[in-house]
Amino acid sequence: MYTGSLRRLIDELGRLPGIGPKSAQRIAFHLLKVPGEDAHRLAASIIDVKDNTALCPVCLNVADTDSLCPICIDDRRDTTVLCVVEDPRDIVAVERTSQFRGRYHVLHGALNPLEGVGPEQLRVAELLTRLEPEGVVEVILCTNPNLEGEATALYLARLLTPLGVNVTRIASGLPVGGDLEYADELTLGRALEGRRTMETT
Amino acid sequence: MYTGSLRRLIDELGRLPGIGPKSAQRIAFHLLKVPGEDAHRLAASIIDVKDNTALCPVCLNVADTDSLCPICIDDRRDTTVLCVVEDPRDIVAVERTSQFRGRYHVLHGALNPLEGVGPEQLRVAELLTRLEPEGVVEVILCTNPNLEGEATALYLARLLTPLGVNVTRIASGLPVGGDLEYADELTLGRALEGRRTMETT
Repeated sequence: MYTGSLRRLIDELGRLPGIGPKSAQRIAFHLLKVPGEDAHRLAASIIDVKDNTALCPVCLNVADTDSLCPICIDDRRDTTVLCVVEDPRDIVAVERTSQFRGRYHVLHGALNPLEGVGPEQLRVAELLTRLEPEGVVEVILCTNPNLEGEATALYLARLLTPLGVNVTRIASGLPVGGDLEYADELTLGRALEGRRTMETT
Repeated sequence: MYTGSLRRLIDELGRLPGIGPKSAQRIAFHLLKVPGEDAHRLAASIIDVKDNTALCPVCLNVADTDSLCPICIDDRRDTTVLCVVEDPRDIVAVERTSQFRGRYHVLHGALNPLEGVGPEQLRVAELLTRLEPEGVVEVILCTNPNLEGEATALYLARLLTPLGVNVTRIASGLPVGGDLEYADELTLGRALEGRRTMETT
């Protein structure tokens, strides 16, 4: 009951993450309706992002082809503190806090022996080569607070601490605005473990 | 913190229906990761659907350019029964029931005086010209069971009945598998109104 080109578009849209058959159909019919230039702009931006995007040669974040990423190119950023993340999207999350003025290093994954992801599959070698030339004094391990992220953090801490850098890990605890009653015991345990003296001044 | 092309892709994706900023970001990073040919296939199918799709000259469903739609082209369909729907997507829904073997007519909207949609904005004139040549004996009004759809159905019933065709309306009632306790009073009222004698044979 669909035409061939509509069927193909629905199939292609359905491959995108978070897009089920219903959403794919809805988006396809929406694209049928919008002015031709809008649809062409979307198609062009998909091709553009593939053609003109590569990994930053320094931190492996997303960057324009043959260029540093917007953060490494910014010479106001502190080169002595590195924030290690699993994925370029995590950089967006950290940047949104406006609390970090150092640079990043993207591992492109986390240790996961069951899925065959060992240290060689992550961009660890590239991290090691950055420490000395950039004068790094602190590495903040900002991997996810789940099994894979914790294992990766532990692995990196053991690797980096003997090299004389200060290795830190982001805190786990209750989310701001959260409710003790609904906190799971692991998170609450971590929150207790990470307790700090109240500042009263 | 995004590159220019990534920012543009996220913006374009965010214009699609049901895609919020988070999903747009997720899809954009997904497209960055997939093989180039996958992304190009998606872009090509968007352009293809715009270039090669038009409205069926008979029923105004989606069709390949310069061609009848898959339903009007099928000569096994009964031309004497017309199912009138608001949108091409509604055809997909009716076809899924496998209970209708006639043809369709797409109004491309429903009456909505507040938004300036009167009978002239709908494809009513095209509907009238089909009745005689196609030998239509029944028109099933399959517009949505909401305010606009009901108003449209009433308008069409008043217009078509004097022309000697049998005008019917799809039933409203409790959804199959639904629960009386949770039915709203309007739906339950409609279900009572539309009650039918039980067949006991």
